[in-house]
Amino acid sequence: MVLTVTLNAALDITYELEHVEWGEANRVARVHARAGGKGINVARTLHQLGREALVCGPAGGPTGDAVRADLDAAGLPHALSPLGGESRRTVAVVSRGHGHTTLLSEPGPELGADEWEALHGEVAARAARAEWAVLSGSVPPGAPEDVYGILAATCAQRGAQAAVDASGPALLAALPARPAIIKPNARELAQALGREVSGTGDALEGANELRRRGARAVVVSLGAGGACAITDEGAWHAAVPRTDGNPTGAGDALVAFLVDGALRGLPWPERLRRAAAGAAAAVAHPFAGGFDAAALPRLERGTTVRELEAR
Amino acid sequence: MVLTVTLNAALDITYELEHVEWGEANRVARVHARAGGKGINVARTLHQLGREALVCGPAGGPTGDAVRADLDAAGLPHALSPLGGESRRTVAVVSRGHGHTTLLSEPGPELGADEWEALHGEVAARAARAEWAVLSGSVPPGAPEDVYGILAATCAQRGAQAAVDASGPALLAALPARPAIIKPNARELAQALGREVSGTGDALEGANELRRRGARAVVVSLGAGGACAITDEGAWHAAVPRTDGNPTGAGDALVAFLVDGALRGLPWPERLRRAAAGAAAAVAHPFAGGFDAAALPRLERGTTVRELEAR
Repeated sequence: MVLTVTLNAALDITYELEHVEWGEANRVARVHARAGGKGINVARTLHQLGREALVCGPAGGPTGDAVRADLDAAGLPHALSPLGGESRRTVAVVSRGHGHTTLLSEPGPELGADEWEALHGEVAARAARAEWAVLSGSVPPGAPEDVYGILAATCAQRGAQAAVDASGPALLAALPARPAIIKPNARELAQALGREVSGTGDALEGANELRRRGARAVVVSLGAGGACAITDEGAWHAAVPRTDGNPTGAGDALVAFLVDGALRGLPWPERLRRAAAGAAAAVAHPFAGGFDAAALPRLERGTTVRELEAR
Repeated sequence: MVLTVTLNAALDITYELEHVEWGEANRVARVHARAGGKGINVARTLHQLGREALVCGPAGGPTGDAVRADLDAAGLPHALSPLGGESRRTVAVVSRGHGHTTLLSEPGPELGADEWEALHGEVAARAARAEWAVLSGSVPPGAPEDVYGILAATCAQRGAQAAVDASGPALLAALPARPAIIKPNARELAQALGREVSGTGDALEGANELRRRGARAVVVSLGAGGACAITDEGAWHAAVPRTDGNPTGAGDALVAFLVDGALRGLPWPERLRRAAAGAAAAVAHPFAGGFDAAALPRLERGTTVRELEAR
């Protein structure tokens, strides 16, 4: 079983309209609402891959109830912990006439000390049954700054390997807990290092710095440029076929496929190839948290992996 | 006690942003969410006036639960009936930089035959304790076209007078039930009559036509132009002081003040004067469903009522 932790779970609402008149009253043509947040997207992708995944994280208020109801409807098991504040919504306004989407993200609620204790206890209790724990997304106000370090250590003590997808101080604070995988994108890697990262050479050098600080493997997502994996076994770059679609959630698919590959016992180059293809298949899927299963075999065949030389 | 029926209750969400970048990702600075819909606005205003009001209508799904929770938080009693579909949301995006608000309204859920029966039963049971029933707002798909006629007749049989604030076929279908008050605005009156309405002369003539078809009193809201009341006792126009603010919900305030005035036993000219001033005080209030109590005495003094001559 894979545990996924989402500290800022959201109800992601999509409004489709033929043409939005800004500053006017508009009737929405179609509404979609689903539970969102990076850990929930990872759990959905694992579920699509046939893996058992458990969604953890705080959720509160009527919007938290809507998140729970949507997870139930999707058949995704969850053990969301209590939250006094109301979980946040995001609203994506798709205006076909403009050919663009406007995203409006609510600020997340604060995590109180009791709520953090409840979450930590829930993760600790569930980690004993988990092979992997995926810790991903932004950190709400009120949570410890090293929240991912604490949770990764707790999971490791109970035998679950941690994959961390975070940025900034939250990413750096997770490193001493020796997470099995961290997955920054190029921008997040640059931010963590405090210097520019352009190209696979910079990514390799930067990843090795984060490995010296504790990460066991670093996977750097490069969007349309594929992904690099820098590990104890070696370093590789996977180049993916060009794919049009919705890049939101592609990084979450990458993490889900990396964990799935680890559970399958795939060697790193093959694990990376499949995960990079899975992220491209997520781009081809209209919503975050899913991938285009029909396109996956073609994308896997079209993904090429080459070894990177140490600098 | 005043019963208010809202067939399309909503969760009205307001997003405040300094400046929205259309087609981009935006962080919302402040979020407000409250139960909305015309009948709920009327109940809030009655509550502010110290009157006991009961909110009825169908509500379903997590958004329906959010509506219930917000009514509880506001201390507004409710007897919302079950709905299999999910109640709708509206999102108002306030962009200070643009100086405008974009409203996005979700389509309402369909009302099933069982749900209509449950609502009708609830209204019938509650009407026996009510002096007035306010029936207002749009009619969801699945409801009978003469829903307001049926409900007004049910309420009248149980001793509750009906005030109907509706438009189009739903308004016309309510007339045979002889509602005590109907409150179209000038546009709705024109639509009901199938001809233009400009000025108080046209409003008087049109109102008398609707009175011949069953309405006992017709109050026509004219926005900044005040309101007219055309009744068995005579016809009057109330002119209000110019008021800047948010006109959403001003019509609901007008209805609430009219019912309050009837319960106080005020004669029609005084009832109209106070109601027109109350609607202006609602414009001065930032949210629909409330009025600026501090401004009300000044607005009442500044509102002038003159009798209209029959044509």
